[in-house]
Order: sequence, then structure tokens, then C-alpha cells
Amino acid sequence: MVKNRSTKDLSLSSNERLYHTKKTFSIFKFPIIKNLTSTHVKFYTFHAGFKKKREDLLIVVFDSSVPVAAAYSKTSTPSAPLIWDKKNNKGFCKILIVNSGNANAHTGMRGIKVIDNYVKRAAIKFNCSIEQILVSSTGVIGEQLDAIKIINKFPLVKDSNNKDLLSAAKAIMTTDTFPKTIMKKIRIGSKNIRIFGFAKGSGMIAPNMGTLLAYIFIEANVSKNVLKNLLHSHLETSFNSISVDGDTSTSDTIMLFSTVNPKDKKVVKETDIKKISKTLKDVMFQLALQVVSDGEGISKLMEINVSRAKNYQQASSVAFSIANSQLVKTAIAGQDANWGRIIMAVGKADSKVNQNKIKLKFGKLLVACNGQMFNKINIKKLDIYMRNKVIQINLDLGIGNFKRTVYASDLTHEYVRINGDYRS
Amino acid sequence: MVKNRSTKDLSLSSNERLYHTKKTFSIFKFPIIKNLTSTHVKFYTFHAGFKKKREDLLIVVFDSSVPVAAAYSKTSTPSAPLIWDKKNNKGFCKILIVNSGNANAHTGMRGIKVIDNYVKRAAIKFNCSIEQILVSSTGVIGEQLDAIKIINKFPLVKDSNNKDLLSAAKAIMTTDTFPKTIMKKIRIGSKNIRIFGFAKGSGMIAPNMGTLLAYIFIEANVSKNVLKNLLHSHLETSFNSISVDGDTSTSDTIMLFSTVNPKDKKVVKETDIKKISKTLKDVMFQLALQVVSDGEGISKLMEINVSRAKNYQQASSVAFSIANSQLVKTAIAGQDANWGRIIMAVGKADSKVNQNKIKLKFGKLLVACNGQMFNKINIKKLDIYMRNKVIQINLDLGIGNFKRTVYASDLTHEYVRINGDYRS
Repeated sequence: MVKNRSTKDLSLSSNERLYHTKKTFSIFKFPIIKNLTSTHVKFYTFHAGFKKKREDLLIVVFDSSVPVAAAYSKTSTPSAPLIWDKKNNKGFCKILIVNSGNANAHTGMRGIKVIDNYVKRAAIKFNCSIEQILVSSTGVIGEQLDAIKIINKFPLVKDSNNKDLLSAAKAIMTTDTFPKTIMKKIRIGSKNIRIFGFAKGSGMIAPNMGTLLAYIFIEANVSKNVLKNLLHSHLETSFNSISVDGDTSTSDTIMLFSTVNPKDKKVVKETDIKKISKTLKDVMFQLALQVVSDGEGISKLMEINVSRAKNYQQASSVAFSIANSQLVKTAIAGQDANWGRIIMAVGKADSKVNQNKIKLKFGKLLVACNGQMFNKINIKKLDIYMRNKVIQINLDLGIGNFKRTVYASDLTHEYVRINGDYRS
Repeated sequence: MVKNRSTKDLSLSSNERLYHTKKTFSIFKFPIIKNLTSTHVKFYTFHAGFKKKREDLLIVVFDSSVPVAAAYSKTSTPSAPLIWDKKNNKGFCKILIVNSGNANAHTGMRGIKVIDNYVKRAAIKFNCSIEQILVSSTGVIGEQLDAIKIINKFPLVKDSNNKDLLSAAKAIMTTDTFPKTIMKKIRIGSKNIRIFGFAKGSGMIAPNMGTLLAYIFIEANVSKNVLKNLLHSHLETSFNSISVDGDTSTSDTIMLFSTVNPKDKKVVKETDIKKISKTLKDVMFQLALQVVSDGEGISKLMEINVSRAKNYQQASSVAFSIANSQLVKTAIAGQDANWGRIIMAVGKADSKVNQNKIKLKFGKLLVACNGQMFNKINIKKLDIYMRNKVIQINLDLGIGNFKRTVYASDLTHEYVRINGDYRS
């Protein structure tokens, strides 16, 4: 029997409500960054009432208007915040407002007006222009958002109330089972600066830009154009290289901020940008890995390494064909070294491969080559390998010099339960 | 714990072995065509030993060399039978040999030589050229096929031994839970002719040609070129309009035969071709519907009607984006009218839609329009509707005149069990 549901339950994360009451599940241990605060960027978190009990509103206040670069979902049904930000923001930010529990997606013109409303009030409260405000929302699709719930919390944003990075990460969670935080230090000139950030995301994760919400901060005076370059050069190897379910959200957003007042004279040098870039690449990758590792119902993480492809496009399409194949995902969940399904997924990627040149390994264990099954498969070792939490699928196409690595979760009963089970 | 498996189990349908021992499951009742035989085309079925107990070999003998048209999977990792047929067949057929239980896929040059071997022996036995022989295989990927198992049965092909259409359909089943048969009669000139056929397919079903095995016979003298035209004009609305898991097989094949000796003077007229075409369209559609209705683990069939698209390509890509979305499939399985996920799937199809013009209905029940949730949703009726076995998703894009309908199965625990569970 189907549970009785109100209109509120007719959309994206009605399961969210259920899910938080059930046991959570994480297969990896990621470092959690505790007690991180900054004098330049302050985090305020509240329970605004989009969720029943948990904190669901994050307001980030910068001490000046700082440079920012953003990338958004390539969906053709974008949420209201994506439409609003793209239209209004000019690359500087004083205030960032993020709520969880309601995505403000497919809410029509009314959804946009709701944002106009709370942003205007925020501009007055925080003494800035509306162009210096950015907004994000995540949660239920199709429900109108109540601006008052956000506006009501503005008076509570006071210096003494600010929280740490971990609280910020927690306030934007939906079906996530753990908060996703990161911090790295690098030396720029004579001092240590930090690059830190947080993200949310668990379902509706597939590459096409960020596929989630992520916010990253650099404690250095980096211009908005440099931020833009940095962000886009590392998207491909991080948030665009993960997939949970092949489904792309309406609300994906990633933002990269400099926390320093751009009028500050200490503009970073070219060589320092390179240092920052290297660390940022790692920060973005680590955050993306946390997201896919929290994929709904995950029991194993697949690391798919496609090598020696004819071109990058081929390496990518083959890698994602494997990553998103239901038959591959269920086999991995079942600890089954079912290499035939991987060959199938290679074939369906609609890219000209030569199946006789394919070399396929699970980890270091060869299973197929010369167009057929390897005749000395070590079944015992393979069975043991398939019990690992991370399964490497190493596929050598043997026809070129291009490669691509993507990360994906498997497909389990738990996934079906989270996303489909309303029966008790 | 993972079960101990032999090398034999390391490929496509190790689960096949498991599955046939479990309860079968069909949500629809299709007519089963019993006792259909023909003087022009005879079916012989055997247990050759590819499966443990069930019949697994079908030999079809025509009384003369008849015209045939075929369409094959567009995979770039085709099975040996696809490579062999494409290379050797010239549009005429005397003998068709189909085995189940071993797909002879990703078996390298050896896989091709195995076919050379049993086809040469068949040419001698049945007194025809190797060009007049067609072969298909379905089942495990990556295992070498033993030609002797097939050759051993040739002496048993005797007039008195022939079987009916239903036996033929059963002999090629793998994870199918019911045999798929069809027969329609039409009047051509002064007599009734039949169009009949059978198919197999349950998993690894996604459009890119047939995605399964299907054989259809027309009791009229139709040339190979006309057969080719007929086949390709109806593929799109039948086998190319279904999806179980978005996964395309290495072995998909559909063949369309005239059962009449082409030297027969009674060539059908142009007007009769039109009649045949109309009936054939229905025959192909009905067979395709049987296949998707037997989708692995299916509990509900989705009929996705996309209308008023800008062009056919847009209608198709949006329809399949919905059909293959894990989040939509699990919601339907959970009897959840989760329209937000459908909007998400529309958005990720990467086609320029205007979300404010979308009208979305479940059956006749409007759930979203004007870029937002319909404000008078009848929750009670909607809840009752979602309990149906066939769920219509009616999506009006409101920007053009093109439409597409596709059929897809949902995503259930049973699917995950069939494809992933080796744990007891």
C-alpha cells in the first residue's frame, strides 16, 4: 500500500524526510574539518523551517565584496536560483544565502519573485547591492518557497553568532549521510593561506557541470577572471568526473570565492596562482570524491580508468557508459566480476573501438584480452578482489593515447529503497 | 559472502542459471500462439547442452531458399554471429540456427571459426550454400561455444520431428519469464496469409536497433528489398521504442522472412504490400511490447508520450531521458507521482525546452503547467492512478508538432536481485 501523502510530498525529496530517520551509511572515512572559522568570511546557520528539525539555512557574510566565479548545471529546466544568479551577479559577492529542503525549482515566475523579495531585504540588512548577493536552494522540486522563513532569520545574523565550516556543510545537506568538508594550506610569499570549502550531494548526481552544491574559498586576493579560469580548468577532473545515477539535477552549483577584499594591494603573483591552482585541483577532486562516495545506497565505489583511447571524447563516453550501466552497477554491488557486461557497455557507448585490442582488468587482474576471455584468470584472487570497497575497472582500448578516469557508485537494494519504497 | 564460481560463471548470464530456478513474474497477459506450424517453414528444437536442462537450440528449415532482411545491434562490440551474418548473408535463407545459453560474444577469431565449422556441416546436411545459412546466439558473453553440441543435433532434424512456433520461442529464452509469440492474418487476393513471429529479450534492452532476438515470417512472396524496407520502416515504432535498462546488447538481431519460394509466380501487388506493412507494423509493435513487459524485475510498465516537441530528435531524447532515469524508474516502482524527477529528466536531456510551456500529466491527471505545480492536483485520484500496472507519462512540451512514444520498465528490488545478488 502507498502511504497517504500531502501535496508537499509530490516532489523530489519526499524520500529525504524518510531517509534522515533511517540508518545512515558511509563506506569511507573522510577527514572532517572541525572548528574552521575565518575573519573574512563568516558562516551563520539556522533552522528556518524548510526541514522539520534540522538546520536548513546558511548565510555567508564576507567582510567586503569579494571576487567570485560560478558554474551551474547545464540542465534546460534550471531552478529559480540558477536563473536569478546568472542574470544578476557580476562576479562579486558580499552575501551568499543557501537553503536546503526546498529547491525552488520548476516554480515559475513566482519562484523568481520570491528570490527578488528576500534578496532586496538582505541588501538593506547587509548594506550592499543585490548584485553582490548570491543564492542557492536544494531539496524538493516544485514547491513554492516561503521568503519569510529566510527573511525572519536576518536579524539573528550577528558577529557573535557565527559558526564554523562544518556547521555550514551540515546546514545544506539533504539526502547526504555525512557532511563534506575540506581544507588545505599552502605557502604564498611569507605566509600560509588556506583553501577550504564544503559541498552537498548524494542523489541526482551525474556530470554536466557540478551536479551538486559546492562552495570553495581561497584566502588570497585572486581576481574574478583568474577564479573563473581556475574553476573551469579543474571542473573536468573533479565534479564532472563523478556519477551516482546518471541523473542531472536542476540546481547544481559550484562557487569559488576569494575571501580577500580586492582593493587589498597584495595581489598574488603568477607563480603563486600556479601553486593555488595545484592545491585547488586537489581540493575540488577531494570534495567530488566525497560526494560520489556518499552516492545514494552505495556499497562500493567504482574507479573506472579508460586508457589508450583514440581521443578524449571516446575515453569519456566509454568511461561514463560503464559508470552509468545498470547492469555493471548491479554486478559490482553483487561482488560479481562480470566482465561481459563491461564489454557490453563499451560497445553501447557508440564509439568506434576495436574489441580485439581491448585489455580489461579488475585492479591488476587481467580478465579479457585479444577479443576474448583471458585464459588464465585467477578466480580465487578475483573473488577476493571483488570484496573490496573500491573496485578499479582498468580498461585499455589499445588504439590511441587519451585517457579518462571517472568515479561512480554501484546500484543496490538500498538505492531502490531510498528512491522508490513508500511501502512499509 | 560471494558464492564460489567457476570461470563459466564470470560472464553475462551467470544469473540466468539462478533465475530460472526462482519464481517467474509477468504483469501482463499476452496471447500465446499455440500449435502454429507451416509447410514452408519448419521449427526443430533441442536440448544441446548450453543450458542445464531446458531446450537451447532452434533450427529453422525453409522448404526453399527464401528472401530475408535483417537488422543488427549498433554496438561496437558485436558478437560473432553478427559479424558472421553481416559478412556472409546475401538476402536469402534456407537454414537459421539459433542457440541460447551462450552468446558467442567477445570470443575473438575463435568464435568466428566455431561458426564456420557448424555452418559448413549444416550446408552439407541441408544441401545449401553457407550464404543461405543464418546464425544467432544469446546468453553468456565471453565463453567459447562448442560447435559439436550443435552439429550433434543435425541428424535429428527430420520431417516428423518438427515443432510449433511456441516451442521455437521457448528454445531461445534466457532470462525471459514467458515466451513471446505473435500471429496475425490478412487477406491477400483470394486467400488468407499469416504473419507470425517470436522474440526473446528481458535484460540488456535499450534502443539501438532490436536489442533482442526476433524472427518474423510473412507467408507471401515478398522480395528481399521490400522486406528490407518493411523492416526498417517499422523498427522505430517497435523495437527501437522500448527500454528496460538503457543497456544495449552485443547480440541484438531481428530477421524478417518471406516463407515463399521467390520463384513462385504469385508476387504480391503494391496494394498488398501496403496491407502487409500495416499488419507487420502491429506485429512488430506487439512483439516489442511483450519484450519490454518482461523487463527484468518489472512491476509497472511506463508509457511515455512526449508531444508538441520542436523536432523528432527532441521528442526522442526527452522520452528516453525519462525512460532511462533511475530516479524516475524507482519512483514509478514506488507508486510515487514524483513529477519533479520527470522535470529533472526533461532538463538533463540536453535539448532546448521552455520549462514554462511544459504540461505534465499522469494519465489524464495534470500535475504541472506554466512552469510550476498545478494548483489543483487531485491527490486521491493520483494515488489511485499510480497503483495501475501501466503508468502513462504524458508530457506536452508546447513548442512544436513532433511526438514520440516509448515504453520502459520500472526499477525494482527484483531487478537488483536478478542482476546483482549472489548472496544467499
